[in-house]
Amino acid sequence: MTPNGLHHDFVIRVAAAGKHAICEKPMAVNAKEGQEMVDACKKANVKLLVGYRMHFEPKTLEVIRMRQNGEFGKIRFFQGQCGFTIGDPTQWRLNKKLAGGGSMMDIGIYAINGSRYMTGEEPIWVTAQETKTDTVKFKEGVDETIQFQFGFPSGAVASCLSTYNMNNLDRFFLDGEKGFAEMQPSTGYGPIKGRTHLGELNQPVTTHQTVQMDEMCEIIFNNKKPVVPVNGEEGVKDLKIIDAIYLAVKTGKKVEVSV
Amino acid sequence: MTPNGLHHDFVIRVAAAGKHAICEKPMAVNAKEGQEMVDACKKANVKLLVGYRMHFEPKTLEVIRMRQNGEFGKIRFFQGQCGFTIGDPTQWRLNKKLAGGGSMMDIGIYAINGSRYMTGEEPIWVTAQETKTDTVKFKEGVDETIQFQFGFPSGAVASCLSTYNMNNLDRFFLDGEKGFAEMQPSTGYGPIKGRTHLGELNQPVTTHQTVQMDEMCEIIFNNKKPVVPVNGEEGVKDLKIIDAIYLAVKTGKKVEVSV
Repeated sequence: MTPNGLHHDFVIRVAAAGKHAICEKPMAVNAKEGQEMVDACKKANVKLLVGYRMHFEPKTLEVIRMRQNGEFGKIRFFQGQCGFTIGDPTQWRLNKKLAGGGSMMDIGIYAINGSRYMTGEEPIWVTAQETKTDTVKFKEGVDETIQFQFGFPSGAVASCLSTYNMNNLDRFFLDGEKGFAEMQPSTGYGPIKGRTHLGELNQPVTTHQTVQMDEMCEIIFNNKKPVVPVNGEEGVKDLKIIDAIYLAVKTGKKVEVSV
Repeated sequence: MTPNGLHHDFVIRVAAAGKHAICEKPMAVNAKEGQEMVDACKKANVKLLVGYRMHFEPKTLEVIRMRQNGEFGKIRFFQGQCGFTIGDPTQWRLNKKLAGGGSMMDIGIYAINGSRYMTGEEPIWVTAQETKTDTVKFKEGVDETIQFQFGFPSGAVASCLSTYNMNNLDRFFLDGEKGFAEMQPSTGYGPIKGRTHLGELNQPVTTHQTVQMDEMCEIIFNNKKPVVPVNGEEGVKDLKIIDAIYLAVKTGKKVEVSV
C-alpha cells in the first residue's frame, strides 16, 4: 500500500511495464487521474483492479443478492456512517498532497461505494456539509467530518457521514418497501455483523483481503465476473462522486453528478 | 388532539378563558404562531405545556442523565431517523392548511427535539434536502421526505431524516468521545429499546402519555421542574428550527438559526 497521491504514477508505470495492476482504494485523488490510469491500462492491454474488499465479503454479498432478488422491495433509503478517530497527526493520511483529502479519501469512500452496491443505483445529485473542529490536525484540504447526501433516479435517498473524529461509527442501513438490512460493523475488520427483516445474517466470517486476492486472481487470470465490479471504471465512479462532494462542500450547493 | 393548524386558535381561546393549556406537538405550524400562543398564555397568567412525551420516558432520561454527567465525553454526533409509511391520503395530516406541512410536522419534529435534548445544545445552522416521489399523495407544501443536518456550537453535528414514505426508521444515535447511546425504537410506542457503550438500557417500560399527564399535573399544580422543559418556549424553539429547515429546502442554502 502506497499513499493515495502516488497511485496514479505507480499504476501508469506498472501498465507501461506490461503488468496487471491491483491498486488500493481510492484508486487516485480525483476522477481525472483515475481515468488516466484506466486509459493507460487499456492502452497497455493490462487489467486494473481496485482494492474493494467489501465486494467479496459474504454478508455484504447476501444483502446484495436479496436486493437484486427484490426481497427488500423498492429501495427507499441508504445510510452509511463511516469513521474513526485518527491518531498520529504526522501520518500521510493527514497530508493533502499524499492523501488527496482527509477522512473522505480513506473511510468516507466506503459509504460512497456502499451506497452504490447496496442500492444498485448511481447517485444523480450530491449535497455535503463539512465541519472542522481541529484546524491544527486537519489542515486546509484535509477533511475531518463531512456529512453528505445522495439522490438516486428511483427517488431513493442516501445519508452518509465520513469522519476522522468520531468512534463507534461503522453502520450501513438499507431500507426498502418490504424490508431492511442493517450492518454494524459494516466495513471494519470487525467481524461484519448484520441483520435483515428476516433475522441475523449468518454467512461465514472471512479474512477480507485474503478472499479479495484469491478472487482478484480469478478475475485477472480466468476472467471471472465479480458480483460487483472492482475494475478501474468502478474506481473512477467513486472518484467522480468524491469530486462532486468536495465541490458541494465548497459551493454549499446541490451538485448534479453523472457516473 | 386537534389538527396542528387549529392549535393556535384553540390555545389562545383557552388562555382567554383563564385555563392552563396542554397542547400537542407541534404546538403550531410556525414559530410566529407559537410565540403568539406563549405571549397569550403569559398575559393571561396561565401555563402552556407542549405534549413532548419523550421528555418523561425512562430510557431517554437515563441517556440524558449520562450525557449531563459527562459519561459520553464531548458529544460529536447525533443521528435521528424518524418516519413511517402514511396511509389514508385524505387524512388531515396530508392537508397543508390543517397540518402545516407533512412528515416534518408529525414525525420529523421528534428528531429535531431529540437532537436538542440528546446533545444538550441548540443548533446554529441547518441544511436540508427534500425528496418527493408521490406528488399526488404529497401535495404542494406537504413534505414526504426531508433529510436535514444541524451544526452545534461545540462542533458536534446532527444528521436527521423525516419521512412519510419509509418503514423501519425509528433510531436515535448519540456519539461522544468516550461512549455512545443507541435507541431503536427511539420515539415509537415500541417499547423503547436502547443500549450504550456500557450495555443495554433496562429502565422500565411506561405508557408514555400516562406518565406525561401525571408529570404535567405536577408541573402545573406544584411547579415541578422537568429535566427537559415542556413549556411553550420549548415548543417555539422546535418551530424556529422547522421554519429554518423549510427555508433551507426552499433556498438550497445553509440557514443560520438562533433559538
